[in-house]
Amino acid sequence: MYDEQIIAEVIGTYFVIFAGCGSVAVNKIYGSVTFPGICVVWGFIVMVMVYSVGHISGAHFNPAVPLYIIAQVLASILASGTLCLLFDVTEDSYFGTLPVGSNLQALVFEIIISFLLMFVISGVATDNRAIGELAGIAVGMTILLNVFVAGPVTGASMNPARSIGPAIVMKTYDGLWIYVVGPIIGTILGGFAYNLIRFTEKPLREITRSSSFLRSMSRSVAR
Amino acid sequence: MYDEQIIAEVIGTYFVIFAGCGSVAVNKIYGSVTFPGICVVWGFIVMVMVYSVGHISGAHFNPAVPLYIIAQVLASILASGTLCLLFDVTEDSYFGTLPVGSNLQALVFEIIISFLLMFVISGVATDNRAIGELAGIAVGMTILLNVFVAGPVTGASMNPARSIGPAIVMKTYDGLWIYVVGPIIGTILGGFAYNLIRFTEKPLREITRSSSFLRSMSRSVAR
Amino acid sequence: MYDEQIIAEVIGTYFVIFAGCGSVAVNKIYGSVTFPGICVVWGFIVMVMVYSVGHISGAHFNPAVPLYIIAQVLASILASGTLCLLFDVTEDSYFGTLPVGSNLQALVFEIIISFLLMFVISGVATDNRAIGELAGIAVGMTILLNVFVAGPVTGASMNPARSIGPAIVMKTYDGLWIYVVGPIIGTILGGFAYNLIRFTEKPLREITRSSSFLRSMSRSVAR
Amino acid sequence: MYDEQIIAEVIGTYFVIFAGCGSVAVNKIYGSVTFPGICVVWGFIVMVMVYSVGHISGAHFNPAVPLYIIAQVLASILASGTLCLLFDVTEDSYFGTLPVGSNLQALVFEIIISFLLMFVISGVATDNRAIGELAGIAVGMTILLNVFVAGPVTGASMNPARSIGPAIVMKTYDGLWIYVVGPIIGTILGGFAYNLIRFTEKPLREITRSSSFLRSMSRSVAR
Repeated sequence: MYDEQIIAEVIGTYFVIFAGCGSVAVNKIYGSVTFPGICVVWGFIVMVMVYSVGHISGAHFNPAVPLYIIAQVLASILASGTLCLLFDVTEDSYFGTLPVGSNLQALVFEIIISFLLMFVISGVATDNRAIGELAGIAVGMTILLNVFVAGPVTGASMNPARSIGPAIVMKTYDGLWIYVVGPIIGTILGGFAYNLIRFTEKPLREITRSSSFLRSMSRSVAR
Repeated sequence: MYDEQIIAEVIGTYFVIFAGCGSVAVNKIYGSVTFPGICVVWGFIVMVMVYSVGHISGAHFNPAVPLYIIAQVLASILASGTLCLLFDVTEDSYFGTLPVGSNLQALVFEIIISFLLMFVISGVATDNRAIGELAGIAVGMTILLNVFVAGPVTGASMNPARSIGPAIVMKTYDGLWIYVVGPIIGTILGGFAYNLIRFTEKPLREITRSSSFLRSMSRSVAR
Repeated sequence: MYDEQIIAEVIGTYFVIFAGCGSVAVNKIYGSVTFPGICVVWGFIVMVMVYSVGHISGAHFNPAVPLYIIAQVLASILASGTLCLLFDVTEDSYFGTLPVGSNLQALVFEIIISFLLMFVISGVATDNRAIGELAGIAVGMTILLNVFVAGPVTGASMNPARSIGPAIVMKTYDGLWIYVVGPIIGTILGGFAYNLIRFTEKPLREITRSSSFLRSMSRSVAR
Repeated sequence: MYDEQIIAEVIGTYFVIFAGCGSVAVNKIYGSVTFPGICVVWGFIVMVMVYSVGHISGAHFNPAVPLYIIAQVLASILASGTLCLLFDVTEDSYFGTLPVGSNLQALVFEIIISFLLMFVISGVATDNRAIGELAGIAVGMTILLNVFVAGPVTGASMNPARSIGPAIVMKTYDGLWIYVVGPIIGTILGGFAYNLIRFTEKPLREITRSSSFLRSMSRSVAR
């Protein structure tokens, strides 16, 4: 591992947390961001960071993946601290994640959305190179839609670092274990599920051909 | 057909229904998603699933296309069941499709938006390879805009599986036939319409040239 | 001109008007689309139609460009008529374009946004092939933002066909001339403006090099 | 520097300011744009202008980058003047930037968001050519999310020209220095930060391999 990869991971995670949690805090204090706006910010900041530092460090930003863990949690604490210095953050404008319903409901939700995120990451990364260029869009938009669906229920963490930083800075540890355990289980299962369909028995040439995937659909109707 | 294609189709359809119907249920129970947010979720989940498993199974998710029918309806029931376990879904928070106005109005609307979806799928799949990489974006955004236009009127199904799953789980069969008949008719007509313009008499070289499609427009003004 | 090009232009324009005007009508009658939703629908329907039929007919959909005029106006009337059959369209739910302020203000606005649209079309079409693949995105998103800026003032037509269809079906001709004259003037000026910068004196190799356009910016800071 | 580059920079900046500030003014006077709509307009107008004139002038639109300064400030004044002629702009509908909280808070915010913008520009411009095609999307969406996060606090300038134009036309100079000093400091630091990770010690072949960046993540889980 190289120094510049650590720096890239710190800067990348810092801005993901600063922008994402910042949009939550600004919305609670100033009000005009709206919940759909928060979803867009989370999705787009991950997308642009994948395109900015993905070629250097791999753009993980997420300790559920067993690399860069210390760098990411550190960056999350730094970003949360910056927001606390910039705003008068109270309990009402807390930008961390807290389960709205039961802990079990939140845990299941975090597992499902982390599963989906890892499944998409696996899919776009094993696809051929050309569509792989759109990986940043696919991954970012998955996060965006996950925040739409799970945000009102769990805060839609998908990422221990996203939850640990604000929790430490604001000393709010209620249900924090959910956002560590849920994403780890979901990520492992999602990667595992993709492997069930990845090791195809088809020869490589046929895979390449089938990548023109929508053609069969229109053909079958055309007949 | 290979096993991994069936699994891909089940997982893909499961998440399309879970995220799409989930955003409807969460919006009805928690309120902050908003209708534009629901439109974005439906469009983006299909887009990311096309990029995740399109190269494996073709990313149909839709039994109007005569493949994978059993797998898709099964996945829709599973996703609807998951949502019922996670939330206290009542009649008011029903996430299936119901006609708001008359049955005829709903049927015509479902035919038109399914026609548009199939027409776009046919168009982006028969285009040259390069723009075909954007097929996931084009198809997902078509669904997004269709939900905007037809959502308040019919629920914007375009897909029997999307309607059958919630209907079975919640035992709500009012107007269900509309969401089976409409999408099938619209899909067949949309594929048929594209074939009218697909079998061009132009030699292949000229088609390739004309793919620089916007150039002629600016040239004609430049003269 | 081939038959399938005419059909493509009719189908394309039909769906642009049906979806765009449909979102206006549905919002006025059912209410949940919201104005940002209308902007998204107009932008995305043009984007997906550029990718669906652009390689066949050039995806004009706009008689300000002196081709396909009859086909486009006809398609606009058909789409407007479909909406009138589907909905109980009254004066309050009119989905055509009407100037909100003075006629002069509306005319200037229509000229500026049509100028911008034609300028972007010219720019992405004369760029190198690779970025040209994103032409549909660039053109669609220009329309989306134009509707945001000019929609509340003029209805943001940019297109005589978009205004003529609803006007004829609903017999509402107030200020219709603005939406014919404005787009034509703006489109001609926008294409003309791009030609000022198109005929560069740089040799071709330098143009290719400068297409890595953002590099110089970061370099100049790096020094 | 060529004449057509100056013209491209003037036209590009003119429309960035006209559309962005226009959406602010229209929202204040007519009301339906909404704050998320303003964010979308700022992001998308920059994106489409990067694709329209980026291959000609580099699409700077921003005097923090030490080129084209006079052209950009002039274009910003012209666009602001156009808006004042079109609308009855009062103090309440001012479309310039004003700090909402303290000057220090605004300055820090402008530095951070300008840092992020320059960091992304550096990242997507030094990446390999293929992903560089998506530079317009990455840069535009960074601006979009920056406006979401910082808009309610500072107006989210990131650009002296964006603030100077409206200030001169409306003679409102309160806190204008923030929007000159902040973006310049942030841009320099952001470019500097990227250079820390740019000059990698890895041989070129390994960089190319690692550009398939998401693969390692899914592999590490697959093991």
